[in-house]
Amino acid sequence: MNARTVEILDTTLRDGVQSAGVVFSLEDKIKLVRALDSLGVRYIEAGNPFSNPKDAELFRFARDKLKLKNARLAAFGMTRRPGAAAEDDPGLRAILDSGAHIASIVGKSCAFQVREVLGKTLEENLRMIEDTVRFLTESGMAVFFDAEHFFDGYSDDPDYALETLRAAERGGAERLVLCDTNGGTLPGAVAGAVKRAVAEFRTPIAIHCHNDAGLATAATLLAVEAGAMQVQGTINGYGERCGNANLCEVIPNLELKMGLRALPEGSLPELLSIARFISELANLNMDEAMPYVGHNAFAHKGGMHIDGVLKNRRSFEHIDPALVGNRRRLLISEVAGRSALLTRLEKLAPELNRDSEETVRILETLKALEADGYSFEDADGSLTLRILGALGRRPAFFRVLDFHVFSRQASGPLNAQAYVKVLVGDRVEITADEGDGPVNALDLALRKALSRFYPVLGHMRLQDFKVRVVSGTGTASAVRVRIDSTDGETVFSTVGVSTNVIEASFIALSDSIDCLLMHKSAGRA
Amino acid sequence: MNARTVEILDTTLRDGVQSAGVVFSLEDKIKLVRALDSLGVRYIEAGNPFSNPKDAELFRFARDKLKLKNARLAAFGMTRRPGAAAEDDPGLRAILDSGAHIASIVGKSCAFQVREVLGKTLEENLRMIEDTVRFLTESGMAVFFDAEHFFDGYSDDPDYALETLRAAERGGAERLVLCDTNGGTLPGAVAGAVKRAVAEFRTPIAIHCHNDAGLATAATLLAVEAGAMQVQGTINGYGERCGNANLCEVIPNLELKMGLRALPEGSLPELLSIARFISELANLNMDEAMPYVGHNAFAHKGGMHIDGVLKNRRSFEHIDPALVGNRRRLLISEVAGRSALLTRLEKLAPELNRDSEETVRILETLKALEADGYSFEDADGSLTLRILGALGRRPAFFRVLDFHVFSRQASGPLNAQAYVKVLVGDRVEITADEGDGPVNALDLALRKALSRFYPVLGHMRLQDFKVRVVSGTGTASAVRVRIDSTDGETVFSTVGVSTNVIEASFIALSDSIDCLLMHKSAGRA
Repeated sequence: MNARTVEILDTTLRDGVQSAGVVFSLEDKIKLVRALDSLGVRYIEAGNPFSNPKDAELFRFARDKLKLKNARLAAFGMTRRPGAAAEDDPGLRAILDSGAHIASIVGKSCAFQVREVLGKTLEENLRMIEDTVRFLTESGMAVFFDAEHFFDGYSDDPDYALETLRAAERGGAERLVLCDTNGGTLPGAVAGAVKRAVAEFRTPIAIHCHNDAGLATAATLLAVEAGAMQVQGTINGYGERCGNANLCEVIPNLELKMGLRALPEGSLPELLSIARFISELANLNMDEAMPYVGHNAFAHKGGMHIDGVLKNRRSFEHIDPALVGNRRRLLISEVAGRSALLTRLEKLAPELNRDSEETVRILETLKALEADGYSFEDADGSLTLRILGALGRRPAFFRVLDFHVFSRQASGPLNAQAYVKVLVGDRVEITADEGDGPVNALDLALRKALSRFYPVLGHMRLQDFKVRVVSGTGTASAVRVRIDSTDGETVFSTVGVSTNVIEASFIALSDSIDCLLMHKSAGRA
Repeated sequence: MNARTVEILDTTLRDGVQSAGVVFSLEDKIKLVRALDSLGVRYIEAGNPFSNPKDAELFRFARDKLKLKNARLAAFGMTRRPGAAAEDDPGLRAILDSGAHIASIVGKSCAFQVREVLGKTLEENLRMIEDTVRFLTESGMAVFFDAEHFFDGYSDDPDYALETLRAAERGGAERLVLCDTNGGTLPGAVAGAVKRAVAEFRTPIAIHCHNDAGLATAATLLAVEAGAMQVQGTINGYGERCGNANLCEVIPNLELKMGLRALPEGSLPELLSIARFISELANLNMDEAMPYVGHNAFAHKGGMHIDGVLKNRRSFEHIDPALVGNRRRLLISEVAGRSALLTRLEKLAPELNRDSEETVRILETLKALEADGYSFEDADGSLTLRILGALGRRPAFFRVLDFHVFSRQASGPLNAQAYVKVLVGDRVEITADEGDGPVNALDLALRKALSRFYPVLGHMRLQDFKVRVVSGTGTASAVRVRIDSTDGETVFSTVGVSTNVIEASFIALSDSIDCLLMHKSAGRA
């Protein structure tokens, strides 16, 4: 098997940090470089050492202390300033000093942009590109030339767009990177322009797409079909506006659908954990509907779908989820019924069958809970606990003997306090805490009381908290609280229902603590 | 200008509700149908009247009470059961009884699926398709035939896949819908199969894609290029697993990039508000990086990008954001939002213009509130109050001097009490009440205190109450509470944001009382 290889350049640390809300500390960036290297990415565009001092520090650290197995770092910068020599340009100097192997140099390749935004002549722009690339290659670096607005330029004035690539090639560039900077080019137009560039240049062509029309993944794949041999993108599609081409979609498509090699053999199943790790570093929730690596990417809800997929995986799964490190989930909802439950039961109590007395009892318990407003379709953790409970096997890590929550508004801002009294084994712990709201205060007090007994709860945090009214007649109706909590690796989804939002939260919080403790004790066993 | 028209079929209410976490009440579904109709969608696949009693109710309501301007409803169901007559099939009967104009009938078109999952012969499956379609057309319905797993089937055994379309055409189907049920087909393969179907059949071809490989939008557009004349998808891309083709991407691409017509003229700028309204109904956060309609779709963060875009829009924007109802956001200094506000202001304060000092002040107030997590998209009442507030014209019906809320769990069920102290004119009222939860208790106590002064509050009730975390780092983040309240005639939508769910509810509750009192006093005036 000698599949054609496509190079991956990850720009999460350069273009990705342009996302609204994405900020990485230096430590985060180092972790991110290590994770991408272990995934087997070929190039990591790690930042701009001139405009961002934190990036310069990262390059220094990488040069002196990081031993990377697979990846080489690229430092990003712009072509030299108009009218000045390349060797006097402080941005280029910073790239040389960074210790990176590769320089990613962005230059304009759209005639309109050169005139209107840069305000220079077309010829001066070509000289800026060629000089800059030549200066860096002669100083010993490999240069990737990022042709900004290439596709818009190609559509307005194809000759000039290609001229800019020629200038970079003359300067000695090792890759010509065609950028759809505004993300608005249709995939067919991207493919057409890539095909022409591949035909006209010796230098290998790379593709860099943005997702402003929802087409970045498709355009990237079509560019590879048209001959591009490097693709650029970010983990989870982070990036300015609508983001960059999402490597979590591009890489599996290249490998599983197009039969190409993008990562070292055996790496693809690591994709999911790397994607989630980086979303933790970015402190952003994963888009759980994300292809391949989302929690719901292989989740089945309709009863017919569940029956189908149990008969034959191919019914409703385009790939085996394990290929990208994911797994199938059968969402238990009213619509789905027994087969989903039985599959779940197989793991928890393999000795039961479809007609066992216990199976019937569990089904009835769940039906009664659903009638009360519970919904387990996105609350795996609570479902497992309820099934174990109905079987008399739910572990009893703790009991809450009493709690009070107190909220008041006097003249200052609202504050909330919670008092809790818990029993673990035969030991009682009473404590209190305060928070920004009653649920927050209760969460903090509960974990404070229990972490005396279970220190692992110190690492637990809530990731998402959703409340909705179940029957819809106002504040007196039942509310359903859904919580996602995490220890940084696994996500536990739990649910609680009550007429009181605090009690519903309390149920979901208690369940999430039980799930985490159960998970940890299973790990130890 | 006579652009070729592409029909839009929205299946948010059928495929969309297969999303993990998406549940709509009957009232939500009615609102959703109205919104889609006002957007100008041609067909609305509104549910399965046989398997879901709530959907049957929706169809009944639509038939008896809804006057739609643009859309026709489609009822979804499966081909008749094997070995039984179509006229005896209760599922088909339910479709006929629904009162919908169109029947969407799904049947298998993949030979492998027929044998392995259905367990029937290929011939029996063809008869099931033809009989079912004929029975419904002869009963007076238009039938759209959903060829499930068409592309997988076409890749395994193209002749059989096309045979199933032929069976539907013989039965009298008006559309042949090619479904990429598992969402794993590459766009090129989709286009190839569509081209063949378009060439071989008189009946118009429709395309129905899922997003499991991140390619649903691209595959849909390529299918239209290949001759499909109807596209199916959902608002915000809701749907099982990774979702369906996202109409919020597909429609603007069809209209703005491909020069086709998908919505009635002038409708496209409504897309953003409809998308956000439906995400509110679903109680899901918008993916703010979503192309075209995301909050960040035209947000510029980098200084160079901001300079560029201010020099010339084309620098970093692939379209004018206003075309889809969106606007540019400069993450450093925001200047936008005026025109939407001006429309609102025209009603409240016709004497103001774009540059009035007051207009600027109102904009700043709203911007600050949005930065805190407010969102006025589905909270008209609060928006009006905030504008009046910034103008110094908000009526002061009451002031709350103090409130406490107390929740406890001892041995019995949780209960909540609220104490409130209000000032109306120069009279103080102190009272208390209890409820099923703290918000309920507070609501009751507040209205009890105020109805001494405003008896009309006795008829007020809360109709919906939704809570969501705005920044997403657990219970300590801000929560946004949305309330719909009603006096039985008018619905008032209000919103409150705070780190404390009780305070956020208090703000929304107070706003809703002000809205009702303002409405009543305007009525009297």
